[in-house]
This record gives sequence, structure tokens and C-alpha cells, in this order.
Amino acid sequence: MTTGPITGSAKGYLDLADVRGGRVPYRRVPLADGRHVDLYDSSGPYTDPDAVLDVDRGLPPRPGVIGGLGTQLQRARDGVVTAEMAFVAAREGLRPRLVRDEIAAGRAVIPANHRHPESEPMIIGRAFRVKVTANVGTSNLASGDSTLEDMVWSIRWGADTVVDLSTGRDGDRILRNAPVPVGTVPLHQTLETVQGDPAALTWEAFRDTVVEQAERGVDYMTVHAGVRLEHVPLTAGRVAGIVSRGGAIMAAWCLRRRTESFLYTHFDELCDILAHYDVTLALGAGLQPGSIADADDAAQFAELRTIGGLAKTAKARGVQVMVEGPGHLPLHVIADNVRLLDQLSHGAPSYAYGPLTTDVAPGHDHIASAIGAAVTAQAGTAMLCCVSPKEHLGVPDRAGLKEAVIAHKIAAHAADLAKGHAQTQQRDDALSRARFEFHWYDQFALSVDPDTARRAYEVSNSVGPAKLAHFYSLRISNALGHIGEQST
Amino acid sequence: MTTGPITGSAKGYLDLADVRGGRVPYRRVPLADGRHVDLYDSSGPYTDPDAVLDVDRGLPPRPGVIGGLGTQLQRARDGVVTAEMAFVAAREGLRPRLVRDEIAAGRAVIPANHRHPESEPMIIGRAFRVKVTANVGTSNLASGDSTLEDMVWSIRWGADTVVDLSTGRDGDRILRNAPVPVGTVPLHQTLETVQGDPAALTWEAFRDTVVEQAERGVDYMTVHAGVRLEHVPLTAGRVAGIVSRGGAIMAAWCLRRRTESFLYTHFDELCDILAHYDVTLALGAGLQPGSIADADDAAQFAELRTIGGLAKTAKARGVQVMVEGPGHLPLHVIADNVRLLDQLSHGAPSYAYGPLTTDVAPGHDHIASAIGAAVTAQAGTAMLCCVSPKEHLGVPDRAGLKEAVIAHKIAAHAADLAKGHAQTQQRDDALSRARFEFHWYDQFALSVDPDTARRAYEVSNSVGPAKLAHFYSLRISNALGHIGEQST
Repeated sequence: MTTGPITGSAKGYLDLADVRGGRVPYRRVPLADGRHVDLYDSSGPYTDPDAVLDVDRGLPPRPGVIGGLGTQLQRARDGVVTAEMAFVAAREGLRPRLVRDEIAAGRAVIPANHRHPESEPMIIGRAFRVKVTANVGTSNLASGDSTLEDMVWSIRWGADTVVDLSTGRDGDRILRNAPVPVGTVPLHQTLETVQGDPAALTWEAFRDTVVEQAERGVDYMTVHAGVRLEHVPLTAGRVAGIVSRGGAIMAAWCLRRRTESFLYTHFDELCDILAHYDVTLALGAGLQPGSIADADDAAQFAELRTIGGLAKTAKARGVQVMVEGPGHLPLHVIADNVRLLDQLSHGAPSYAYGPLTTDVAPGHDHIASAIGAAVTAQAGTAMLCCVSPKEHLGVPDRAGLKEAVIAHKIAAHAADLAKGHAQTQQRDDALSRARFEFHWYDQFALSVDPDTARRAYEVSNSVGPAKLAHFYSLRISNALGHIGEQST
Repeated sequence: MTTGPITGSAKGYLDLADVRGGRVPYRRVPLADGRHVDLYDSSGPYTDPDAVLDVDRGLPPRPGVIGGLGTQLQRARDGVVTAEMAFVAAREGLRPRLVRDEIAAGRAVIPANHRHPESEPMIIGRAFRVKVTANVGTSNLASGDSTLEDMVWSIRWGADTVVDLSTGRDGDRILRNAPVPVGTVPLHQTLETVQGDPAALTWEAFRDTVVEQAERGVDYMTVHAGVRLEHVPLTAGRVAGIVSRGGAIMAAWCLRRRTESFLYTHFDELCDILAHYDVTLALGAGLQPGSIADADDAAQFAELRTIGGLAKTAKARGVQVMVEGPGHLPLHVIADNVRLLDQLSHGAPSYAYGPLTTDVAPGHDHIASAIGAAVTAQAGTAMLCCVSPKEHLGVPDRAGLKEAVIAHKIAAHAADLAKGHAQTQQRDDALSRARFEFHWYDQFALSVDPDTARRAYEVSNSVGPAKLAHFYSLRISNALGHIGEQST
């Protein structure tokens, strides 16, 4: 497990006077000129050299966490600024009332199960910094500890939440050590209880899994309740069929049973369970297109309309809800898709894998995805789900997981800049200033990946001064003192 | 030097009945179902196992090349469809008249110096496939042969042209072996003739370099003629100053001499030299912003207006001309920049490095760039200049060069899809179909990087069937036969 400070920065905490025991983490990057830049920090105690880490005991619970008083949505509607709202307001550098109002309107969520006090609250919504999430536990061979390592590794590089796809094998171990919200797809674990046969699934088996996971502290659950029996035939003419695993399972269930989806028919009951724990509902796009060819088709839109209605129902029952956007879209339809999803879901925050903007990038799918992710986030998508370089070829290794997180952090950052986020711009400006003044180590520390930046520089340097001399000789010998290194 | 067929495809040629000796290369990807997909191919004879390669003799000149009859622009205006126009029309799958009309209108260029008959003609313009170019010869330590290797490597992965930054040391060796147009920045070589002192530059020294390079066969030259004396003070308040090397040299010259730029005052004479050889003029953005903070500032726009006027002058003198867009822009201003550049330059085709959409990605700048590149190309930018992962840290190695080309090919492809390019969509559809039908080797062959895709798959496979089983077990055991592997 990789722990310790991120190169070139130190962990700091902002004490919240008005929140019992709350302290908001950040990363401080000291600069050569004596100033510093403070960065949003999702990495948890794992980057704090003073933290006592014991994965068998788990992280210490955050003090001041009070559960059982309803969901963040219900409390926001009552006009309350909860401890979690105060925490994320400080973290985002915004007023607590703005946070409360966005949550009350259903335009943002704080995924914070009452039973996951180890988590540092964060917010997902278009008025806030664009978030990034990473899948962990994707490998059958993975032990609980390797899933835990993947989680710590993902948040080290900036993942704001993780989705644990290990189907519950070691879910408690992840949750007790997770300083970020943990999402799941409970249908996956349920399927294992019925020996992998979709037709054997029942509402009761699903409900039991949901309750078990909610008790454990899962913060948000992806549920493909928008896949209805009548939608399934709409996918018949597709090039890539149904690529969402949850969507495919539910489509199989509906077809074999010739019955409406139990997720749809028991939706109210599901909402009431989620509300009890304040589990945030993520309405998964089970019929999202799996290729450029299938983008914007009838199945996608039919499900989308259903999801919009379900989002409304969930919010009416006090459940925090977010909705999934499509994962494969050509560039020119992305912004329209975001607008439509926003409209049909009555402003619920949205998240998306990618979208991948072309199908021809296997081995480099993180780039095809980062392009779409930046554009969709600029248009309002609130959280980006990481697509790894070999997304369609196999499960990512450690290096691939990092590549995926970094690519989507860059996309999120580019979107934040485009949305006019002031703190984001400060970081870019500080880095540009460091570059201009040849403060190389400031550059590394301010980058999304200090280790890679530094290594790249040192490799070039080690080749000999002659090689680098060409690179910036002109910067040194010019009239302005300002001659650049780049391009032509 | 890496030669031989690209994995999973075979070189083919389309014979042009009406063009003397002309044969248009393509790559044929045979599919498992007996069909095939033909792909645009910029890799030249290096991927043809039947080609006899001798770098000391150079490539065989293309038959039927007739120089000295004016530029493509002049001939298009005369209503002539040249051999080069017929070639690119076949290559792009479009009518020759469309090619001619776009060139006549100054909306596209075919960089094809009469003295570079080894090159396979290609076209740059918004009505055509988005092109990609790579810088080679960036290292002082690089021998001519390593620059040559970089060129062959870049075009193998899809670069449509290369810019030779080796300042003429081995320019002839590159040109005689280059099946793609070669660009240069003649100011760099000129600076070496005056021992690196910008103030010692003269129009005469510059002119002599231009003539020497034009005689050698250079197809397009980047000239920073838009940097005028009066613009330089506008950069004083910038965070990152002047980052274009050519721009910085000319700014230094203007300031030290307190004189108008010789590139500006001798522009007509320059145009007449370029027209004689049909060297395409690339009007470099010498004052482009070098950071997000400096985007859309007065210096950038002042130069842009000048470039617009110069483009008009050049076209009036029969010179094919393209214009450079900015290299650092936040996402939300990219499309407006493309529109403005198009308007001010009277529709001249544009090219850009990136633009980089954030400054915080050193070590991964190819991703920050690919995001901007896709968006700018979608808006009309005709050629994307590759930014390498460590663009701001050092010169790229071979792996970095490939990463850069692949990232920008993905961006170009995503933009072509968004622009509705039918051939592009066919490739995506074929790959998606192969994915759906588990034709893994078709997937690899159709991808932008067959070797990496195949390796990624095989590594996952070698871990054991159990690992992959989880990955797509659901696809096999589902009711539709169509259950996906992706995401949740």
C-alpha cells in the first residue's frame, strides 16, 4: 500500500469552529518564493505522515457524525446546514447556505451513509468542483487487500469516490478504511447469491443485499431501475447491444420472466430503505449506448425518460439521487445529452463513464474518454467515472488505474477552468508562473502527477546538458528574458 | 528503424487511371467474417513489405510530378485539377472538383513543393479529414538517422506530416526519405548562421535559408511574420510571456533593433519565393498565449488581426497559406477562437498545438492537449500538432513520440466523427461489431494502436482465465447473448 505525502506537498487541516470535531483536509504546496497554494485533497489519512494506520481496525470515525436524523436532502429542505454541509462548504471554499440550497433543490448530493463515519464528506453537483470516481475490486483474483490498495492508490491520485465492484467479498474492509464515499452495484452481489443466473433474481434477494450493504455503510448504490420490459426490444437493432452489466442483467430478467423489472415495481420500497440510511441513489443507465453507432437511439431515450420520473419519485421520498449519462457519444451530441438529462431528471446531478468519443482507441481508451469527459463536465456533468486504457480489453493493473484517474482528473480540471472556478485557475496560474521562472520543483508539485513530471524532467536532464540546452537555450538568451521552450 | 506492415493490416494501392503513375496507398484490414475495412494510410513505403528501402538513395520519386507550373492555388484558380488534387481526392474518397474548389477558395492546402517528389500528396482543410503532424529532430544530440527514425515512427502511427526541427543539419536526408510533407521553421536554421544572436538576424540571411530549404524540397514553412514591433509591449503583463520560439526570436529582434520585423516588411518578397517552389506558408502564432492565464489577451488578438491580413496578401500572390491557432486555451473559448481565426484569415485552413486546456498536466500534457485538440478540430481546425506527455519538461523519447501521435489521432478521429465523416464512422462501427462478436483480433487491427491493444489483452489473458472470466462472463451467460463487459 502506497502511503506518505504526495511529492512536494504537505497535508494540512482546516479546523471548523462550528462543526464538532470537523477538520477539513487539504494539501499545501510550498513555493520557491515563500508563498503556497492549497489544493483540494481527497487522499485521506494515507498521505498524512502523522496518521496512525491500521487496516484491521479501520480509520477512526469522524467525530460529530450524527445519523438517523434523515437524509441530507430532508434536512436541507428543513433549512438545516448539517455538519456534512459545513464540511463540504469549507472544502469547496463556498458558503454553507449555497451547499444547503443546492441539496435542497436536488441539484447536488452528499453521499454519506450514516454508517460510514470514516468518510470525509464531499459533494457532487454542477455548482461544485467536478468529481472523479474510480472502479476498484474489478478482478476476481483480487484479494480484499488488493482492492484496498487500489482504493488507496486511486484516491492518492485524486479519485473523489470509489465504486467497489468486488461484490461484497471484502466490502466491510474497504468501508472501514475508506475516507471517501464508497459506491456499489448491489445487483452484482445479489447475482452471486443466485449462482449467476439472472432469471433467478428476486426483489427479496435484491432487497436483502441492499439492506446488508446499507448496514455496512455503502454511501451510494447504482440501481438500473430504468430498464423496463418494454424497453428491451428497442435494443434489438443495435451494433453493440446492452453493454451495461446491470442493464444486461435486468434486461435478461425481464425477457425471461416476461415481467416488469422488480427494481421498477418495488421502487418506492427501495427508496424508503435508502432514505433510512441516507444511501444516495445512483440511477444507472442500463440501456446506455455501447458504441458510437448506437448513440442517441430509442432505447437510450426511453430509459432516460423513465429515469427522469424515478428521480422525481426518489427525491419526493427524501432520497438523494444522481443519474448516469451515456458512456459512448460522438462529440457533437454530448452537450445536448447533458441538457436533456438535466431537464428530464429535474436537475439531478449526473455522472458518466467518459463518454468515449470514438470506439477505435482500445489500449488508449482513457484518452477517448478524457476528451468526452471534459466536454460533458463542462456542460454540467458533476462526476466523471474513470475509463482505463484497456477498458474493453481486460481489467486494469495498478499503472492503468493511475493512468485512468490522472486522465479524468485532467478532464475535470479543464472543465472546472471552463466553468470559471477561481481556485482551479489559481493552480494553473501558479504552475505557469513557476514554469516561466524555471522553478521546476514548483511545477512538479503543482502538477496532477508530481512523480511522473519529475521523472520526465530528470530523464531529459540525465541525457546531458546539451540535450536540454537546445530545449530552453532561447529562453535564457533572449531580449525579454521570456523566450519560450515550446513548439515552433 | 521500424518497418513492415502494421499489425493486422496489409498495404494496398489504388491505381489512378487518370493520373500518370499515381497510386494511392491505403491499409486493408481483413475481418474475421471475410469482409474488410480500408483505412487512410500515411505511413508510406515503410509499411510495404515489397518496397525496396535504401535511405542513402532515398525513396523513388512519384512519377508524373510536374513542377514549375505554379502553385496548387494558382492552378486551382485556373480551373485545373492537378495530379496532386486527383491523388488527394482518391485518398479522401471525395470528388476531385471539391478538392480543387476548396483550394481555389483558399480553404485548403496541398503542401507539395515541386522539389519533393517523394511525398504522397495530402490535403489540409476543414472539408477534409483532420490531419496530425509531429515534430521530429528536436534533440541537439540527435543524429540525422535518429531524426529519420522519428519521422518513420511518427508516420507509422498516423502522422500526416512532420515538422523537422533539426535546423537543417540533415534536412536533405529527411526529405529524400519522406513520403509525407515536411515542414520547417526556417528562422531556427537562420539563427544558427548568426551564432544564436537574434539581433544579428537579417532579412538576407533569412531569405537565403528559405531559398536553401525550398530548393531542398521543404513543403511548408512556419513564419512568424505576424509579430510586429508594436505588439511586443502587449505581452509585458503576461504570466508566461512569449512561449513560441519563433515569436520570441522576432520579438527580441524588434525590441533590440527598435525596428519593424523584417518578416513583415519583406513579406511580399517572401511570398514570391514561396510561390516559385509552391512552398505552403504556415503563419505561426508567435504571440500565442503560453498559459491559461494569458489566453485571449490583447497580444494574441493583435497578432491574429495581422496574420489575417498577411494571409490575404499571400493568397493574392498565389501562395498556399495556413494559419496557426493558439496553443493554450480553456475549453469554453476554443470554438470562438476557431471562428475568429477563420473569419480574420478569410477561411484559410488552421492548425494548432493542442490547445492545452490546462497547465497542470506536465508529464501528461498529451492528454490536456488531446482534449483541446478534439474540440478545436470539431470546430474546424484542420491539422493538430502533437504535444508530447512531457512537452514542458524535456524532449520526447520514442515512446513519448508515439503516445503523442496516438493521442492526437484519437482527437482527430473523434472530431471527424463529430463532423459526420462517413468513412470514419465505418471504422468505429466495424470495431464495435468486432467487439460485440468477440472477434478480438479484428478489434486490435482496427484500433489506432494494434500492438498495444493486443498486448493489453494478452497480459490480461495470461493472468489466467479466471481473471478474464469475471470480465465478460455475463456476456456469455445472458439471455440476449449481448451482455456487456463495461462499467456497471
